[in-house]
Amino acid sequence: MPTELRDSLAECGLPSALEVMGDRWSFMILRAAFNGICHFEDFLEALGIARNILSNRLSGLVDEGIMQRTVCEHDRRKAEYRLTEKGIDLLPSLLALRQWGEKYGLGVASNPVLADRRDGMPIGPIGIQAHDGRNLAWRDLQWLDRSEIGKPAGDCCD
Amino acid sequence: MPTELRDSLAECGLPSALEVMGDRWSFMILRAAFNGICHFEDFLEALGIARNILSNRLSGLVDEGIMQRTVCEHDRRKAEYRLTEKGIDLLPSLLALRQWGEKYGLGVASNPVLADRRDGMPIGPIGIQAHDGRNLAWRDLQWLDRSEIGKPAGDCCD
Repeated sequence: MPTELRDSLAECGLPSALEVMGDRWSFMILRAAFNGICHFEDFLEALGIARNILSNRLSGLVDEGIMQRTVCEHDRRKAEYRLTEKGIDLLPSLLALRQWGEKYGLGVASNPVLADRRDGMPIGPIGIQAHDGRNLAWRDLQWLDRSEIGKPAGDCCD
Repeated sequence: MPTELRDSLAECGLPSALEVMGDRWSFMILRAAFNGICHFEDFLEALGIARNILSNRLSGLVDEGIMQRTVCEHDRRKAEYRLTEKGIDLLPSLLALRQWGEKYGLGVASNPVLADRRDGMPIGPIGIQAHDGRNLAWRDLQWLDRSEIGKPAGDCCD
């Protein structure tokens, strides 16, 4: 393996994302939050998770700035956990994994579906787009060092 | 929490995706595979992972049909591990997490970058698109039961 590749694997956002998200329960809590759940007891019921694990993971998500803990307006003894902007930005990752699970694991389409408010039509598949919006498949892609940006494939010997 | 919501959380592709992928090392192995690594010793070196854990996770990925184990053409004592189509289909999830990590964790853009072979320009952000390709933000989305597909938001009292 070339040294440059080994070194460059360290300069990647994936490890820091997994540091935060590399836990099945955290994903499941986020999924419930995207479905509108915000009270501790409702997370408990929805996820079938142990109380101490839920408490630990919610604290972790709050510490990471992914969720925000506030006091419920209607009942000040209750806390609410809501997604921050940083948390909402995890939606594409969650949806991409969910769609993959539908295709290969579950074998059927999930319900409920996430749909466009404008026309009620389900969202499209989460995919990879070029800077100008063209859809790209794996065979259309190449890894480039930042110094090589703008070079089409096969131009290495110019 | 409405019963329908609790029940419907079960009909989702995310748990089955996390069943397979809910492990930090599996993600890191896949990332290395997308970077072209295919030999056991190269995974070891790239990831700084213990031999028994790597062996266990590679077997798991092969069992799940995400990677394929073949004998190396040039050295028949060596095994190669390559992504299957099912594995390649995990790329949007990985890239979405990587971009999130860049934005919030690493604070800088990753290197190397994944770029379009045609023009060498880095891919765009992984996002959510409508069926007709429009970009959608969280506020543009609604959860719909499959029976309600095609209903714009706010039409519930028609």
